[in-house]
Amino acid sequence: MPFSAQTFPIFAADSMDNLNLKKLAQELGLAVSTVSRALRDSHEISADTKQRVKELATKWGFQPNPHASSLRQSKSKTIAVIIPEIENNFFSQVMNSVEKVAEQKHYHVLIYLSHEDYNREKEILNILRNGRVDGVLISVANTTSSFDHLLAYREMGIPIVCFDRIPENLDLPRVTTDDTSAAFKATEHLVQKGAKRIAFLSMAANLSISTGRKAGYEQAVKKHQLTATTLECGADDDENRQLIGELINSPARPDAIFAAVEKLAINTYEVCKQAKIKIPEELKVIGFSNLSATALFNPGLSTIIQPAGEIGREATAVLFKLIEKKNLLAAERNIILKSSLIERESSGL
Amino acid sequence: MPFSAQTFPIFAADSMDNLNLKKLAQELGLAVSTVSRALRDSHEISADTKQRVKELATKWGFQPNPHASSLRQSKSKTIAVIIPEIENNFFSQVMNSVEKVAEQKHYHVLIYLSHEDYNREKEILNILRNGRVDGVLISVANTTSSFDHLLAYREMGIPIVCFDRIPENLDLPRVTTDDTSAAFKATEHLVQKGAKRIAFLSMAANLSISTGRKAGYEQAVKKHQLTATTLECGADDDENRQLIGELINSPARPDAIFAAVEKLAINTYEVCKQAKIKIPEELKVIGFSNLSATALFNPGLSTIIQPAGEIGREATAVLFKLIEKKNLLAAERNIILKSSLIERESSGL
Repeated sequence: MPFSAQTFPIFAADSMDNLNLKKLAQELGLAVSTVSRALRDSHEISADTKQRVKELATKWGFQPNPHASSLRQSKSKTIAVIIPEIENNFFSQVMNSVEKVAEQKHYHVLIYLSHEDYNREKEILNILRNGRVDGVLISVANTTSSFDHLLAYREMGIPIVCFDRIPENLDLPRVTTDDTSAAFKATEHLVQKGAKRIAFLSMAANLSISTGRKAGYEQAVKKHQLTATTLECGADDDENRQLIGELINSPARPDAIFAAVEKLAINTYEVCKQAKIKIPEELKVIGFSNLSATALFNPGLSTIIQPAGEIGREATAVLFKLIEKKNLLAAERNIILKSSLIERESSGL
Repeated sequence: MPFSAQTFPIFAADSMDNLNLKKLAQELGLAVSTVSRALRDSHEISADTKQRVKELATKWGFQPNPHASSLRQSKSKTIAVIIPEIENNFFSQVMNSVEKVAEQKHYHVLIYLSHEDYNREKEILNILRNGRVDGVLISVANTTSSFDHLLAYREMGIPIVCFDRIPENLDLPRVTTDDTSAAFKATEHLVQKGAKRIAFLSMAANLSISTGRKAGYEQAVKKHQLTATTLECGADDDENRQLIGELINSPARPDAIFAAVEKLAINTYEVCKQAKIKIPEELKVIGFSNLSATALFNPGLSTIIQPAGEIGREATAVLFKLIEKKNLLAAERNIILKSSLIERESSGL
């Protein structure tokens, strides 16, 4: 008797452990994610493939778990947002717009802070797999280097969207900004203002945003035949100020600093204030920052501003498309928004 | 047959409408809140009173609603925090510490933004009365002038704690700072630096923090036999800058400005930058602010810093005491924390 796709039960992917998914995938010569989606009756998978997968799953006795299935269907009307920290204007601006979109959908928003801790992030994602939320927005911690905890969401078919700090090689919907070209532009802006020795201050080298920004810096430095100098900083302000102070007082003293994150631009200002180094006369400074009050700094800080509100809005809109089981256009799986460069006094007069 | 407190069912206060509570209170000559607490078997009410209340409730046929009762008992393991906005360092610092305490208790934190809108705040509180959360932390919107929506929580026995912006005449547990004495100190600091005409920039006159801060300012001005000048500002930055500009260019031009909230200190700086008015030479400035980057302003902004982390920690600790039905000490019902004055260049050299 031939199988028809319609006569199969919808398998709840979370009722089947990864081992079973892998066995099916291996036997059928398919990706694990394809098998998982076929069992969830995803529109992304062809009817033929769905039939092959379900046929084998039934033959091998992999049964759907009706409890898990009903759990999936009962809407919690809640989404979760996992961010590294909240005392950062960028993330509070994102939260603000996430909350606005959620409110229009009559959804509640749970907020979780990973405090830049990979283990905590993993734990939060594990807790949220029990049906408490209908979907998750995440910007990963700077200590996150393995992404199995995110992969599990994809395998289980729980809607998840990454933003800003993303796992680079994972095929999850994402909303980011053009970090590489923005960093290129910022570096070139310093060159145009006369800088010859531009140092790049970076944090958390394993983050997507760090590699993108560093790549843009290096491309610009190379184009203008200058030497690249990168200083890796950390979470501790005192240590950062120490490192920046040593760099500024080294024989190869830079004449410009490009801070990859706001915190490091602020640390640079603090060091210069303390050491009475004049910005921009003795040191030009530019940095990524979403703090509008940087206009009032002494001198006003030239910044690359990310469109935080738009990031939150787009990421949440994509998440709701997933929750409502609508099709995502290819372009919606990888949204890249433009940052803007604001020239103030700190990068040159 | 005499009634014993133990033989009564625990009445779920939320199963009885306010009208019934009022009838009982009137008949017994008790406050509505006492009746409500007696029905909930609160430890705050004496055994005698409980017996009188329950006897009459039974006699009048006010039955406990077992469904509502079980709803109350089934822990959501979730608390909600309602704040006016998140793009404000004070509130993000509070959120940070709320989240830390909740995490230790294995609780989830829902975040709601009222966007300074009383109707939205009321709606959020209504939604949250259905058992979705075990307790609520709230800092009220600056448009909130009626407090029935908060009173309902007390009557229903749902744990709620107010922080920073509180309804003044409502007997709810609260965590605030010493706004009046901090404002007095800030004003006196300007006097000591030589200011003679100190203007006070205020927002939302009906908020507890506004009245407290204004009172402190007026006390100091009176003590030093100066004239009080208050400028009421609003939410719109452009309008605020316009108002501040007019004040500074008026015949009675102030020689110092005390901004009751961070936003207004920033607006003042913007006006001075635009109009090339030198701070502090031509205008001394001090303001409430929790933004550490104000140290890098031109010139560094003298500030009153509220202990935001401590406020969040204390308010959440009190909330968990209520959730766990522990006794609150009298001191815990009204916690007042100290703000600190940070002198920088803006208030005088």
